[in-house]
Amino acid sequence: MGQTRKMLETLESDAERVNAALGDYLDSDVQLIGEVGRHLLLSGGKRLRPVLFLWCSALCGQEGPLGVSVIFEYLHAATLLHDDVIDNAGTRRGKPAANVLWDNPAVVLVGDFLLAKSFWLAVQSGEMRLLEVLSATTQTMAEGQVLELVYTDRLDLNQDQYKQVIVAKTAVLIQAACIIGGIIAGAGSEWEEALKTYGLEMGIAFQMVDDALDYAGTTDEMGKPVGYDLKEGKVTLPLIHTLAQASKKEIKLVEKLAKMGDYGPDEFEDLRQIVEKYNGVGFTLDTAREHVRRAQEALEVFPESKERQNLIELADYVVTRRK
Amino acid sequence: MGQTRKMLETLESDAERVNAALGDYLDSDVQLIGEVGRHLLLSGGKRLRPVLFLWCSALCGQEGPLGVSVIFEYLHAATLLHDDVIDNAGTRRGKPAANVLWDNPAVVLVGDFLLAKSFWLAVQSGEMRLLEVLSATTQTMAEGQVLELVYTDRLDLNQDQYKQVIVAKTAVLIQAACIIGGIIAGAGSEWEEALKTYGLEMGIAFQMVDDALDYAGTTDEMGKPVGYDLKEGKVTLPLIHTLAQASKKEIKLVEKLAKMGDYGPDEFEDLRQIVEKYNGVGFTLDTAREHVRRAQEALEVFPESKERQNLIELADYVVTRRK
Repeated sequence: MGQTRKMLETLESDAERVNAALGDYLDSDVQLIGEVGRHLLLSGGKRLRPVLFLWCSALCGQEGPLGVSVIFEYLHAATLLHDDVIDNAGTRRGKPAANVLWDNPAVVLVGDFLLAKSFWLAVQSGEMRLLEVLSATTQTMAEGQVLELVYTDRLDLNQDQYKQVIVAKTAVLIQAACIIGGIIAGAGSEWEEALKTYGLEMGIAFQMVDDALDYAGTTDEMGKPVGYDLKEGKVTLPLIHTLAQASKKEIKLVEKLAKMGDYGPDEFEDLRQIVEKYNGVGFTLDTAREHVRRAQEALEVFPESKERQNLIELADYVVTRRK
Repeated sequence: MGQTRKMLETLESDAERVNAALGDYLDSDVQLIGEVGRHLLLSGGKRLRPVLFLWCSALCGQEGPLGVSVIFEYLHAATLLHDDVIDNAGTRRGKPAANVLWDNPAVVLVGDFLLAKSFWLAVQSGEMRLLEVLSATTQTMAEGQVLELVYTDRLDLNQDQYKQVIVAKTAVLIQAACIIGGIIAGAGSEWEEALKTYGLEMGIAFQMVDDALDYAGTTDEMGKPVGYDLKEGKVTLPLIHTLAQASKKEIKLVEKLAKMGDYGPDEFEDLRQIVEKYNGVGFTLDTAREHVRRAQEALEVFPESKERQNLIELADYVVTRRK
């Protein structure tokens, strides 16, 4: 546990450095941009993506600039802002979601501002390869979000389709943070390949755990309402695994809830019991652990170092976290 | 008139070439993206921005690639898509607006896809200076749209604030198309400066004429409902000029309509009469003509050519067009 605590301390202090930088680039002559942007960016968050960039670049011999690290958080935040509009979410990280405090238009446009700011910061780096990776990533992310929308309410979704969505909407950005860390530090192709695998597997595991917690956590722990995914028509791994084994009667109930959309805590309890019966959460966490193992294995090409140890610990933390 | 007709013919045939390229880059594994994207991109439109890029590059000695020209239309289209969500617009170019046919989420996300595609195409060009201009432009555009939102329903808006908005939300993209035309063709700094001025002044004039037509045109002519700007709380030059001279009673009426938002044709007729009394439309068109003159003047540094003549004619056309 000593190693984990040390990793978490480094994570926290690096997140603090990232937070300062996040504020620096938000300034605009248009006050509302700073307000909405800060609301989202100061609501906490682990800064997983910027920290992965910093640690991966340090792993390859030279920590990259904070001005690049924030790109990954801005892109992530832009996605969250547009998601808030899309989901009409009521809370996010325990605070009212941005679209509850401000109108949808402001939220859409500040998301656009953050996309534009990311693009600008990427260009400022002067690194063509960074730009290539990032531009391919943002395209895949947009496709992933549209795909998720297309798959809304599709209770017949299979594991491959689910994986396709989470890779595109979540994993590629986490992967980009890792690869670009390597690019900025001048890592060779072998190390870049390793970071590519590490980032992808981490990203998949991270989203799977998120999806498991929606059926396993409590609202207090998660800082956002649980049992939310099916309300939004998102069919995720715990449910896919469950539906593959459930009885006709149980499937009927899930279909009923999916149709209702805005079901209450009692109905969610019924749903949770079915998911528990077929070990939907356990299966999802096991699968996530398998991806974490692959992520850690990829780091074997690197010589031992504090950074390598932290990246290994961080991968474990992804599946042990409760929110 | 022979010159104008020749220019319009070239405009049309170049727009056709742009249209083909616009379709080429829309393909995605996610079908919905192509559907929504094509809805907007095949609804017509003058392709002013891509054509300006092509003509300005040709003016500097070498026509730029179609793959770069489409960037400006994709960025414009992304803005329109997000605007549709923001304004809850019912029609656009005489066709139902995208958000009427599809849900807001799809429209927001396909807008994001087009932004990402623009970024990707820009990176493909391999031109760092293109990327610098474009990344600054997209940031300014996002700020401009937020600023327009902040200024919603502000009947005390002055001409400087109005100009600030139209430069940021419209003119900088038109300007970027012109400057990047020069960059791609390897124009020196004197020519780039000239294109910078031409593009900015063209962009300002273009938006001013749009704003004048909202008070002067008819729904049939414009392909979108007129009298719409005030309904959305957009306070534009014809109204600003009018309010500066109107009587207290007239101002009260305008305030009443602004508050109503969804006023009918009779109320709009009252509003139009006040704007006509103080020559709001005439003043706006005169101001636009002054900007067109400055745009044309900037082209004097270039030797005579077919392209220079077309760019001069196009500037005139901007203020004579009826839609």
